[in-house]
Amino acid sequence: MSDLNIYHVDLGERSYDIHIQFESLASIGEAIRRLFTVPSRCLIVSNDVVAPLYLGTVRKSLETSGWHVETFVLPDGEKYKNTATWMQVMDSLMACKLSRNEPIIALGGGVVGDMTGFAASCYRRGIPFIQVPTTLLAQVDSSVGGKTAINHAHGKNMIGAFYQPRLVWIDPSVLKTLEIRELRAGVAELIKYGLIRDVQFFSYLEKNVQQLLALDSKVVSQVILTSCRHKAEVVMADETEQGMRALLNLGHTFGHAIESMTHYTRYLHGEAVALGTLMAARLSHMLGHSAENLEPRIKRIYEATGLPTVIPEFTVNEWLDAMGHDKKNVGSRIRYILLKEIGDSFIAEDITDENIRTLIASYL
Amino acid sequence: MSDLNIYHVDLGERSYDIHIQFESLASIGEAIRRLFTVPSRCLIVSNDVVAPLYLGTVRKSLETSGWHVETFVLPDGEKYKNTATWMQVMDSLMACKLSRNEPIIALGGGVVGDMTGFAASCYRRGIPFIQVPTTLLAQVDSSVGGKTAINHAHGKNMIGAFYQPRLVWIDPSVLKTLEIRELRAGVAELIKYGLIRDVQFFSYLEKNVQQLLALDSKVVSQVILTSCRHKAEVVMADETEQGMRALLNLGHTFGHAIESMTHYTRYLHGEAVALGTLMAARLSHMLGHSAENLEPRIKRIYEATGLPTVIPEFTVNEWLDAMGHDKKNVGSRIRYILLKEIGDSFIAEDITDENIRTLIASYL
Repeated sequence: MSDLNIYHVDLGERSYDIHIQFESLASIGEAIRRLFTVPSRCLIVSNDVVAPLYLGTVRKSLETSGWHVETFVLPDGEKYKNTATWMQVMDSLMACKLSRNEPIIALGGGVVGDMTGFAASCYRRGIPFIQVPTTLLAQVDSSVGGKTAINHAHGKNMIGAFYQPRLVWIDPSVLKTLEIRELRAGVAELIKYGLIRDVQFFSYLEKNVQQLLALDSKVVSQVILTSCRHKAEVVMADETEQGMRALLNLGHTFGHAIESMTHYTRYLHGEAVALGTLMAARLSHMLGHSAENLEPRIKRIYEATGLPTVIPEFTVNEWLDAMGHDKKNVGSRIRYILLKEIGDSFIAEDITDENIRTLIASYL
Repeated sequence: MSDLNIYHVDLGERSYDIHIQFESLASIGEAIRRLFTVPSRCLIVSNDVVAPLYLGTVRKSLETSGWHVETFVLPDGEKYKNTATWMQVMDSLMACKLSRNEPIIALGGGVVGDMTGFAASCYRRGIPFIQVPTTLLAQVDSSVGGKTAINHAHGKNMIGAFYQPRLVWIDPSVLKTLEIRELRAGVAELIKYGLIRDVQFFSYLEKNVQQLLALDSKVVSQVILTSCRHKAEVVMADETEQGMRALLNLGHTFGHAIESMTHYTRYLHGEAVALGTLMAARLSHMLGHSAENLEPRIKRIYEATGLPTVIPEFTVNEWLDAMGHDKKNVGSRIRYILLKEIGDSFIAEDITDENIRTLIASYL
C-alpha cells in the first residue's frame, strides 16, 4: 500500500481528490466517511458485469464504516446510457429517499459514471457524487473532470451537466478482470493525452505499451497518474469547455460519427476515437498544419496496442450527416481538433464541407 | 416607457439583469441580440394559453432583430411539468439542432420557466437561457434565482438544476390577461417576502392589495421591483440553498404536502403556499417562537387577497407521509421555516413528528 498517489483537482469550492492506489477498494468506506460529518445512507450504482466482481467489497467497506447501503445495478453497455435507464436511476433515488447531503456512488466504467453523475447532478438539484471507476478508460479519462451525460436517440451525450465528483477513488488492481479489448480501448485515451499535449508521454507509451497491457504495476501507476494530471490540468484551466478543454475531443467528431453510423455496436468508444484520431492526423497533414505526416507513427502505436486502424467505409453524405454538417447549421461551425506535431494540438474552426469530402474520398 | 427598472443580480460569471418595464415585450429581440455577438437561432418554449396572446409579439421582435425563431408550445398546467413533457422539449432542441451558444427562451409562467430552465441546463450540458415570465408568481419569484426543476411521479421538483438565466425580461402589462385566481396566487408569494424579511413591505401590501389586484401600474411596478430585489439578495447570499435561501420556502413543506395530497388539482401553488404559511404561523406560536399569534393578521391579508384560508382535512398519517416524515429518514430532519414576527423568519431543524401531530390535530 506504499504506492499511494493523490492528485488534488483545484476548482475552488468544487475541488476534490483523485486517490490512486492498488488494492484500495476495501478502504473506500472510511474515505467516504471522512468527507461527511456522519455516515448515513448512500446509493451505489453499478452494472451487471462489475457488480458480481466488486460490489460486495465496496458495500462491505461502506457498511463497516457505518453506512446504510442501497444498490442499483444496470445492464452493462453503452446502449443503456439512455433516458429510460437514467429514469430508473432517478426512481431508485426516489425509492430510497436519499436526502440532499447523502452520496451516490458510481462503481463501473464510463457509462455507469456518466449516468450516475448526471443523476447526481439533478436529483434534488444536486447531491454528493463519488466516482469509483473500474475500467482503464474511466480511470484515465471519464471519471475526472465532471462531464456527465446520457445519450439522446439522435445524439451522443446530448443531455447532461458539468458536475464535479467529491472524490475519485481509483484502484488499478480491478483492471485485472477487465476484458483485454476494454483495456486496449482505454489505452487509446492515454495515447490521446500524448498526442494533444505531451510528446514524452507518447514516447513512453510507445516503449511500454506491452508492459501496460500486461498490467505491470509500475507502468500502470505511472500512466494513470500522468493522464489524471493531464485531464485535471485541462479541466482546471477550462471547466466548462469554453476553449482549450475541447482539445480533449481529439478524434471525437469523427469517432462519434463512426459510433453513430455503426449504431454503437461495432466499436468501443476508445476504438472509435482511435479511428477518428487517424482521420484527424490525415486531415492535419492534408491541410498543411502538420509538416510531417503523423499518421504512420500513430497507426503503429495503435497496431501495437491492438486497436483497429482501418476506417470503415461509408458514403461522404453518411459521414457529413453523422457529423452534423447540415445546411441549417450556418454560423455554428463544427470544431475539429487537429495536430501540428505529436504533443501539439489546436482547435480548427475553419474546416469546410469540402475539406471533409476530400478527406473521406481518400479512404474510398 | 419611462418606468424602466433594472436590477442586476451579481453572481460572478453567472450574473444577469432583471429588466422590468411595461409594454416591453416588443423590445426583447434587440435586448437578446445585445447578449450575443450575432443573432442566430433560438427556441421559444411557451404554453397553449400564453402562446396565442404573446408568442406572436415576441417572435416578431426576435425576427426583426435577425433571429431565426423556432417554437415549442406545451399544454398549460403543473401536471405537465413532468419527465415526458421535458423529453419533448429536449426532442425539440435536438430537432432544431441548437448549438451550445444559441438561446432557449421561456415565455410563460412558473411551469414553463422551470421546465425550460432545466432543459437549458442539460441540453449539451447547458445553453443560454432567457426568462420571459408572464404570471405574477413567475415575475416576482420563480423566474429569478436559477432554481429549475420538473416533478417526479413521487415528488415535486425532485429533478432539476441550479441554472441561472442570462436575462429576466419582465413586462408587467401582460398581467392584464392573467386569470384573477393566478394573480391572487402570485400575491401570496409577495406576501411571503414581507413575512420572511420585510415588515414594511408587508404593511405596504396590507394597504395596497386592492390596487395591486386592479393592476395599478405604480403599485405593480413597486411590488415587482421590491420582490425581485428580495429574491436576488437571498440568492446572491446563498445560490445553492446551503442556508438562508431556505427561508424562501416559508409555507412550502406544508404547501407541497397539500398540493400532493390533492393531486395538484385543487390548489394553485401560491394558494397551497398561503395555506402552508398559515400552518407555519400556528406552529411558530405553538412552539413559543412567536410571542404574538401572527395567524390572524396573516389570515386577514390572505382573505383580502381572495386566497383560501381553510386548511383541508387529512389524517395525521396522510400529512406525515406527504411531508416525507418516515422512519428511515433519521438524521436528515425536515427543515421548517418559522416566524418570530412579521418580517423575521428562521430555519427550524428540531421539529418532531409529535409537533406536527399536535399541529394537525388542532385542525381536526
